[in-house]
Amino acid sequence: MNSFGFRLRLTTFGESHGACVGGVLDGVPAGLAIDEAFIQSELDRRRGGASIAATPRKEADRAEILSGAFEGRSTGAPIAFLIANAAVRSQDYDDLRDLFRPAHADYSWFMKYGVRDHRGGGRSSARESAARVVGGAIAKLILQTIGAKVESGVSAVGAIAGEIRDFDYAKTSPIFALDPRKEAEQTEAIARAKRDGDSIGAVVKIRATGVPAGLGEPLYAKLDAKLAEAIMGVNAVKAVEIGAGALASAMLGSECNDQMSAAGFLSANAGGVLGGVSSGAAIEITAHFKPTPSIAKPQKTLDTSLNERVIEIKGRHDSCVGVRGSVVCEAMTALVLADMALLNMGSKIEHLSALYLPQSPV
Amino acid sequence: MNSFGFRLRLTTFGESHGACVGGVLDGVPAGLAIDEAFIQSELDRRRGGASIAATPRKEADRAEILSGAFEGRSTGAPIAFLIANAAVRSQDYDDLRDLFRPAHADYSWFMKYGVRDHRGGGRSSARESAARVVGGAIAKLILQTIGAKVESGVSAVGAIAGEIRDFDYAKTSPIFALDPRKEAEQTEAIARAKRDGDSIGAVVKIRATGVPAGLGEPLYAKLDAKLAEAIMGVNAVKAVEIGAGALASAMLGSECNDQMSAAGFLSANAGGVLGGVSSGAAIEITAHFKPTPSIAKPQKTLDTSLNERVIEIKGRHDSCVGVRGSVVCEAMTALVLADMALLNMGSKIEHLSALYLPQSPV
Amino acid sequence: MNSFGFRLRLTTFGESHGACVGGVLDGVPAGLAIDEAFIQSELDRRRGGASIAATPRKEADRAEILSGAFEGRSTGAPIAFLIANAAVRSQDYDDLRDLFRPAHADYSWFMKYGVRDHRGGGRSSARESAARVVGGAIAKLILQTIGAKVESGVSAVGAIAGEIRDFDYAKTSPIFALDPRKEAEQTEAIARAKRDGDSIGAVVKIRATGVPAGLGEPLYAKLDAKLAEAIMGVNAVKAVEIGAGALASAMLGSECNDQMSAAGFLSANAGGVLGGVSSGAAIEITAHFKPTPSIAKPQKTLDTSLNERVIEIKGRHDSCVGVRGSVVCEAMTALVLADMALLNMGSKIEHLSALYLPQSPV
Amino acid sequence: MNSFGFRLRLTTFGESHGACVGGVLDGVPAGLAIDEAFIQSELDRRRGGASIAATPRKEADRAEILSGAFEGRSTGAPIAFLIANAAVRSQDYDDLRDLFRPAHADYSWFMKYGVRDHRGGGRSSARESAARVVGGAIAKLILQTIGAKVESGVSAVGAIAGEIRDFDYAKTSPIFALDPRKEAEQTEAIARAKRDGDSIGAVVKIRATGVPAGLGEPLYAKLDAKLAEAIMGVNAVKAVEIGAGALASAMLGSECNDQMSAAGFLSANAGGVLGGVSSGAAIEITAHFKPTPSIAKPQKTLDTSLNERVIEIKGRHDSCVGVRGSVVCEAMTALVLADMALLNMGSKIEHLSALYLPQSPV
Repeated sequence: MNSFGFRLRLTTFGESHGACVGGVLDGVPAGLAIDEAFIQSELDRRRGGASIAATPRKEADRAEILSGAFEGRSTGAPIAFLIANAAVRSQDYDDLRDLFRPAHADYSWFMKYGVRDHRGGGRSSARESAARVVGGAIAKLILQTIGAKVESGVSAVGAIAGEIRDFDYAKTSPIFALDPRKEAEQTEAIARAKRDGDSIGAVVKIRATGVPAGLGEPLYAKLDAKLAEAIMGVNAVKAVEIGAGALASAMLGSECNDQMSAAGFLSANAGGVLGGVSSGAAIEITAHFKPTPSIAKPQKTLDTSLNERVIEIKGRHDSCVGVRGSVVCEAMTALVLADMALLNMGSKIEHLSALYLPQSPV
Repeated sequence: MNSFGFRLRLTTFGESHGACVGGVLDGVPAGLAIDEAFIQSELDRRRGGASIAATPRKEADRAEILSGAFEGRSTGAPIAFLIANAAVRSQDYDDLRDLFRPAHADYSWFMKYGVRDHRGGGRSSARESAARVVGGAIAKLILQTIGAKVESGVSAVGAIAGEIRDFDYAKTSPIFALDPRKEAEQTEAIARAKRDGDSIGAVVKIRATGVPAGLGEPLYAKLDAKLAEAIMGVNAVKAVEIGAGALASAMLGSECNDQMSAAGFLSANAGGVLGGVSSGAAIEITAHFKPTPSIAKPQKTLDTSLNERVIEIKGRHDSCVGVRGSVVCEAMTALVLADMALLNMGSKIEHLSALYLPQSPV
Repeated sequence: MNSFGFRLRLTTFGESHGACVGGVLDGVPAGLAIDEAFIQSELDRRRGGASIAATPRKEADRAEILSGAFEGRSTGAPIAFLIANAAVRSQDYDDLRDLFRPAHADYSWFMKYGVRDHRGGGRSSARESAARVVGGAIAKLILQTIGAKVESGVSAVGAIAGEIRDFDYAKTSPIFALDPRKEAEQTEAIARAKRDGDSIGAVVKIRATGVPAGLGEPLYAKLDAKLAEAIMGVNAVKAVEIGAGALASAMLGSECNDQMSAAGFLSANAGGVLGGVSSGAAIEITAHFKPTPSIAKPQKTLDTSLNERVIEIKGRHDSCVGVRGSVVCEAMTALVLADMALLNMGSKIEHLSALYLPQSPV
Repeated sequence: MNSFGFRLRLTTFGESHGACVGGVLDGVPAGLAIDEAFIQSELDRRRGGASIAATPRKEADRAEILSGAFEGRSTGAPIAFLIANAAVRSQDYDDLRDLFRPAHADYSWFMKYGVRDHRGGGRSSARESAARVVGGAIAKLILQTIGAKVESGVSAVGAIAGEIRDFDYAKTSPIFALDPRKEAEQTEAIARAKRDGDSIGAVVKIRATGVPAGLGEPLYAKLDAKLAEAIMGVNAVKAVEIGAGALASAMLGSECNDQMSAAGFLSANAGGVLGGVSSGAAIEITAHFKPTPSIAKPQKTLDTSLNERVIEIKGRHDSCVGVRGSVVCEAMTALVLADMALLNMGSKIEHLSALYLPQSPV
């Protein structure tokens, strides 16, 4: 169950303190130019070493592509890649060997598997998301060929919420802030949490534009359902909204319905998805990240023998995991959209004859 | 893509104004007592003919089981069932043959498929959810055997939000209200929307208790991610939250983390899921339903030739789709949990020897 | 696990002596003309009531389509269908309630499920194959749109093997014989087995022509591997060959390799598949059917308490299941090929831009 | 589509002349002792450098495990592994850059993907099977815990067929011969083919013992169907038989049916599978390998511009690919059986309560 997607399928592997994290992206159409510099730039955005929000753990995070490309282009074979774990300091975790860190995966995974790689969360670590970003970068390259793109930014840090959604500004902001007027205050909130040995939550907006109408497979692979799965599956996300989202529950139909004109939709409450299928309008997603669970403050917990203990987590951790998480949400969104673009081929019978009838078999 | 689940897999079929809706539930363990009265009672809850919130369309909604049971017990074979469409009045839709109803699937599905069953939304109609409820009822029977159950109720109608979450009270409320003190006001809000030819949104809470720790398959079939997919895929849902949900984004780590004691978790922000795996605590989900898109008020729209038109939708529609939607959310939650209970078998190597070694083959 | 296929996915349900058998075919592209007369004609071929080889059980075998078509064309929604079980005589099986019929599924399924629908094999009965034939008929309609077709016939009955492969002749032969010169002798072999209360095996050839090069998804959904799975899964098949098949193991490379010229391949040992992908040449499959396990002769067996017993099976059974099985093999082959034609869309990146770039979203 | 299996799922990647081949095995239960020496010994058997039948290409074939194990045991996380390509001599293939090698994947894959890694077949090379062997080795470790094992050997080389099936002898034979009396003649047949610049086919027998009754998921994941898929998907296999296989088609029912006594089945024509489910008897599979398509003799072919050419293949190739292929067939069989053992958990409702009810959630 470490694979995601139908026709475009990402399988990931690796642990926080093992040799590497990595992945296999299967189903990439042949002939796609594999722009390694772009892939690296996406990893660099996730790494965010410069940002106050991110972990002080310094990883080079170089993606090494092992297969599936030949002379710069995809061959149709699975694209495997590794990202070495260079900055492992497993001894940071020696004190935690028998303790369940609150709000982490430690307890529930131990109940499931009965064994435990205690070093930095092992497989449950957000470090795995580097592999998602590589997969998402290739998905973005696929989407480029049909004129679609995915962007994101941070709209709120803790209770400090912005109103402006300037996705271009976010690209240059160290905390990926969407609202330039709130950036300083949001930055300070993160810094304060860090100083206090605490962490802080965040709200992330993801937007996809240029997405053709018709993507999404009703009824059990609806576009919004698969996006919700993809985003809720990102570490620390606790809520996902599409379009007006939670606000829609407080509306009347006459307020919420997006009426239509020849120029397009007259409002954007649907968030680009109608009946689980893209409408051609921009796809708007909101992700709510909880604060990083690793904090230095003392917390009550249990050890693996279920004795009561107090834990203080040292290690190196993001104080606001939502900042880097935004890049992961983009990646997951891109993976879903590219997958749906592939799955939608054949939705009409004329797609088949258009592809196959011109070919004359030998 | 009309199938849901891995080991327990529901496939549904049927349109709003065709002969029937129905489904096939595959993967039900053999030997389960198939309690048809219980299945029918779940359908009756969804049907909600008595409720002010529901559509005046009256369907008997009798589930006919076609296969997979023998002498009252499941055989391991797929359980197929039909629910006849008795009350079809397709002529209600004749005026809509060429019009896209705003906020419905009409436009996006037409772009996808190029053909259209205009009668009541065809496949995109919420009527399909009757099949989900049958599947969910059988999933609940499976969950019963391991001591788990799923409940739900309505916490808000439009802006009228309750605070109390009394799941027992909700079972007897015509609008499934969780807060008895808000029920009258919420009921009136629905009635007012109906009188005005309008509709209204709602918030639904779903709770699962008795769920063993260890369910959920990291990293791409996490329990919360699959629940988010399941719930977002219910018609009219625009946002899904787990535990503290959106509120978590405004918290500090020291507030949000659920600390642990020998008596269990000291708070419930996680909503019963840690690292994508159940913790044994109650699973808490919030679903936000938009208002029913079908309203009698005039709305701007397009026809299938993309001419601008005005539409007034007659038909028979729920004025608050979230009320009946709560039953569907329960069903989807039960399907996910039962599937995950099956998938988790074999998470530890000793599960295999415990099952197989006692058997001596002939 | 009662579903077959990726993009075109058949789910079947129903037992030999229940209300019906049926299925749901999901993933049919929208706009396909659903030729119900053709579907029925395929069912009629399988039914083969006229043939000496077939069971005397007389079923009307009418396929009733429940969903997924509107005004004669597919809508993209799942196509569900039922075939009623009219001629059930369950009392034929009363004597067998506690007995395992040799070479049937009885013993192994009882070990798996612990319960048993003893009436005619329940779910394991070849009657389920009627649902496969309906699914396969729709797959053939899809294949027609790209110029491909699937045929079959019987090449051997017991040890009486034909040499000629006249697929047109087979269509008119009561035992679907491929070699007109052997038909009488093969017919007599079947009749003799029947008279003796015995049954007899058969060899079936399946051929698909007009299949475009490029179908099959390496490395774990190779065309030949999926065909082998599809055919081996047909009741009573014990061996599957592609092209030269078993004979290839006795050849030298210089004999076996199909050399190429501008006019095409110079021989046909590959059977139309190279490296798991179709080559454009005719696809040739051989299926070996064991004799029907139900025979009237006394056989040693066990009862469900594992006591030794003797069984004599009355019932109504095909004396040569391979004859009707050939139609099922055709259906399974068509399902695989249509699925692979859909899956192959997107094998080249230019497929995506050809489909999506001309569309301008609203 | 480079993944195989349901609950135990192998994903492979890599090309013949790229950096490595590798794989990810997902779904391994936690707590399994990962015996790396055993894994290596399986790779060594496949490598078969000592054998006259194998390619002179010398690879160390060391499996490096990257993830999923901690302190010698599986953790439930995916097990990724790499096998470096040390002995790449891509220049051997320069002459073949524009030529389709007869009976190879070259032509059909070029038709599918439009691009081509001409070096040694790229992804289509049998070198990928090293990854299957690693996955299969771990599957064997899983099977050990339930007392099951898988063996294989070569029964025929070209037309020289053995009668004895001595699986222990085969383990020590350089050509994995099952019949000691035929080994010398079979070895000479391979040597002669090699001297002549030719290659030769082979027949392989695979046997699994200790397999519990009840494995296989009817109706579309039958054990025999999945085995047929698994084996037909091995490079160069053209036919697969279960039990009596092709011989069954020439039998009468009274000959073919395996009657039962308290001591077990009285014959073994079924090959351990009844109705698609294991019976507890030994599972017997026969695989027919065509000769290696790479031969030094001149052959007519086409180039990528479809001009007629003559090709003589130098490179380094097995002269009898079936010899090493037997180890791959074992691996695929083990993967199927371990997957089915996991899938079968939950076939009876009491499996669920046995696992979950003793657990008391926190």
